[in-house]
Amino acid sequence: MKVEKTAVSPTRQEDYPEWYQQVIKAADLAENSPVRGCMVIKPWGYALWENIKNVLDGMFKETGVKNAYFPLFIPKRFLEKEAQHVEGFAKECAVVTHHRLEATEDGGLVPAGPLDEPLIVRPTSETIIGDSFSRWVASHRDLPLLINQWCNVVRWEMRTRMFMRTSEFLWQEGHTAHATAQEAMERTLQMLHIYGRFVENYLALPVIQGEKSESERFPGAVNTYCLEAMMQDRKALQAGTSHFLGQNFAKASEIKYQSAEEKEEYAWTTSWGVSTRLIGAVIMAHSDDNGLVLPPKIASAHVALLPIVKKADDRAMVMEFTQAMARELEGRKYHGQSIVVEVDDRDTGGKNWDWIKKGVPLRVEIGPRDIAQNAVFVGRRDRSPREKESVSRDVFVGSIVSVLDEIQQNLFNRALDFRQEHTVAIGSRDDFYAFFTPKDQQKPEIHGGFALSHWCGNARCETKIKDDLSVTIRCIPFDGDKEGGPCIVCGQRSDKPVLFAKAY
Amino acid sequence: MKVEKTAVSPTRQEDYPEWYQQVIKAADLAENSPVRGCMVIKPWGYALWENIKNVLDGMFKETGVKNAYFPLFIPKRFLEKEAQHVEGFAKECAVVTHHRLEATEDGGLVPAGPLDEPLIVRPTSETIIGDSFSRWVASHRDLPLLINQWCNVVRWEMRTRMFMRTSEFLWQEGHTAHATAQEAMERTLQMLHIYGRFVENYLALPVIQGEKSESERFPGAVNTYCLEAMMQDRKALQAGTSHFLGQNFAKASEIKYQSAEEKEEYAWTTSWGVSTRLIGAVIMAHSDDNGLVLPPKIASAHVALLPIVKKADDRAMVMEFTQAMARELEGRKYHGQSIVVEVDDRDTGGKNWDWIKKGVPLRVEIGPRDIAQNAVFVGRRDRSPREKESVSRDVFVGSIVSVLDEIQQNLFNRALDFRQEHTVAIGSRDDFYAFFTPKDQQKPEIHGGFALSHWCGNARCETKIKDDLSVTIRCIPFDGDKEGGPCIVCGQRSDKPVLFAKAY
Repeated sequence: MKVEKTAVSPTRQEDYPEWYQQVIKAADLAENSPVRGCMVIKPWGYALWENIKNVLDGMFKETGVKNAYFPLFIPKRFLEKEAQHVEGFAKECAVVTHHRLEATEDGGLVPAGPLDEPLIVRPTSETIIGDSFSRWVASHRDLPLLINQWCNVVRWEMRTRMFMRTSEFLWQEGHTAHATAQEAMERTLQMLHIYGRFVENYLALPVIQGEKSESERFPGAVNTYCLEAMMQDRKALQAGTSHFLGQNFAKASEIKYQSAEEKEEYAWTTSWGVSTRLIGAVIMAHSDDNGLVLPPKIASAHVALLPIVKKADDRAMVMEFTQAMARELEGRKYHGQSIVVEVDDRDTGGKNWDWIKKGVPLRVEIGPRDIAQNAVFVGRRDRSPREKESVSRDVFVGSIVSVLDEIQQNLFNRALDFRQEHTVAIGSRDDFYAFFTPKDQQKPEIHGGFALSHWCGNARCETKIKDDLSVTIRCIPFDGDKEGGPCIVCGQRSDKPVLFAKAY
Repeated sequence: MKVEKTAVSPTRQEDYPEWYQQVIKAADLAENSPVRGCMVIKPWGYALWENIKNVLDGMFKETGVKNAYFPLFIPKRFLEKEAQHVEGFAKECAVVTHHRLEATEDGGLVPAGPLDEPLIVRPTSETIIGDSFSRWVASHRDLPLLINQWCNVVRWEMRTRMFMRTSEFLWQEGHTAHATAQEAMERTLQMLHIYGRFVENYLALPVIQGEKSESERFPGAVNTYCLEAMMQDRKALQAGTSHFLGQNFAKASEIKYQSAEEKEEYAWTTSWGVSTRLIGAVIMAHSDDNGLVLPPKIASAHVALLPIVKKADDRAMVMEFTQAMARELEGRKYHGQSIVVEVDDRDTGGKNWDWIKKGVPLRVEIGPRDIAQNAVFVGRRDRSPREKESVSRDVFVGSIVSVLDEIQQNLFNRALDFRQEHTVAIGSRDDFYAFFTPKDQQKPEIHGGFALSHWCGNARCETKIKDDLSVTIRCIPFDGDKEGGPCIVCGQRSDKPVLFAKAY
């Protein structure tokens, strides 16, 4: 078999984790920084985040959510207010202890001005936002309170991976307060479903929505709901979470209101968030051995125009044709946004491949011979790099929106097919262990997938599987099989299968 | 004289600094947080920042600037790279020294996991971005590099004032690298002029653009340029700065490129920023004794619809009329954005005044009698609260864009008139001292203004005036009088007058 040379090395099959790093590099999305665990998001990567932000922000606002901004620093005593919360976040946080640097005699600088109380760089903002909510809420008329914040958070991480797990990351955190448990629960699920729609319709990633098991809950939550997507190494990636916090944080932060009956009550709160991790999900789910593949609806650019000039005499004519086409394309709308065009006028040979690696949905080569026929030479990122076709310029411009939609749909279908192919209902313990065990332990190839198997609900059985196989319960799905069966570990009765997988 | 009761107390005349705090409170823009020196930006205030961001971001991108994101933390050694820079920022910075909290025997939590090298929470990002630039720039073909970042920064402040000076604030910082000094200087001024256009056309604030004196330069810059606006207490507020950094940071961070002649050269860099301080400027420049006054082009909402229901029977009809009008208004565009409408359907008496205090440009009262005439009762925030008029509903909807533009223009004209009234050319030292000295030292009323006076260029004279009067050179204006004259302090010859003022 002839092995095709690929633009990214190693390939997914050869070394999936390293392939991921190389795609990020080849696409110029981000780089590791000299600051431990922190990354630099480069323009091509940051544009993805801007697009994700714009769409989600609009979806939030349509439901009445308003944006605000709360302090980066959380006083230690605030974090301590909720017992499970501090337990969950104190182990990995950046602690500010001083407020200046002072010169030493040998010319160095040392921390000076010790603070009376250490400050924690926010790992999440329930406690600091709860403090504001305690002042903003007095009467049932102040509820519901629907607030969101776009910001950076820090969770000290020892083993990091760009976009997936970094000490600092960007996210949004929504925080709401309600008069009743029911309303808070409805909001928790409403936001989960918004994430679901966004991830499926914009990131082209099918997700399974469900409830977390107790051990996987957000520290301090009564219940956590999540979206799980399958990556190309068949692992699960949690693409967003929404938490029903009950009255835990309302009691910790004294968020109280006077009811219509003039009784003092604690509010019911929720929180929900997605992060730059979504970019990691897009990379891992859609990219191939030639680099990044971007879903058109959130792509940093939709089309790259590549003027090909071999003779200096042709330059002016080719550039004029290219620029006119760029302007016309930019005037068209794709799902409410202007089409984003990159014109790459460098005089280098490899520019077609540069744009393949960067994952732009459409590449358009424009040379004198194409222009003579009023045509362009088009490559689509959802097809092989070799598969290019000559298209009339006007047809290309006229049909770009539907072609982008087609690419978007193809990526979704491909990801859905892949997930279905690697999702199995497993009834026996032996089959379960075999499914999640690589054949050759020395070179653990891509294996496993999503297993729908029964679980009795006991944390002991969950832990056993985690210890033996590094497999966790990703969620108890809302949809799907409702038939009972014996727990995969202990054989006790379970109501319905849950979703097991290895996970990021 | 009859004193009109005002919605905000104290008035500007009575106590300007306290009036400012009370406007922020009355308009529900922000609140002090329990975290030392940090503020919470509430939804009505944050919407202003979102609008400022959107417009500026578009203006930057039109000039080829791309957004990216760099780490929050700066290793101590990075800050130390540029001598003047560390000098300027080491004295007031948040220092992270530990990466977890650990339980003590008595149940408390103490910082643990000391870091090998302390991290500074970024006060500005020249050094950390310079580190990336040193990798991104290799050849003259990589230049210019035009990057911007929207983020939070921290400068430890002992005396804080919401929006004007807080330990944490939000801003954008642009960072560019160029092959030549001339190109870098052109970019420095290009961005300054963009700020100028934005502040004048969107914030309705006339500005004076110019160069800073040496003592007021950004630490590490070769030259700093700024915009200065006059507040209603006649003090100056610096509304933005743009720095020509020469090769100082390129040398400190090793940003080198190979020239077309294959010689290794240091790049020339710039940086430029505006912050949430612009919101402070808007509040201080336009608001009155009844609260906030928002320029329509960046207003959190353009119009508040206030249905007035006195009889329960009327409710449905009034609400239907109101909602239909809201939808129609929202369908109209104001400078490319949809008109933002707030419908306040609360059954409370004071809602007209609530919206006056919040500074919404247009208030529309809608009662059954108005509806019977297909009319609405309109108040404009650039006029007295008592001046309201009945307008045909259709005329109101049809003319809202031009009315908003008129309000925008009125605010600008008013601010310009005020500044001209309080800007004087002063030639004698005695007059200068008198101008900047309040008549009654015990109760320093609003006094002074902008003085255009000669300065010899010597830091000694500048310091003398600063020590005596707390007056500083705000800038050496680009425009204006070019006539020479004697220095206001020492009498030595100066080329042209400079701008003196007390400042925020």
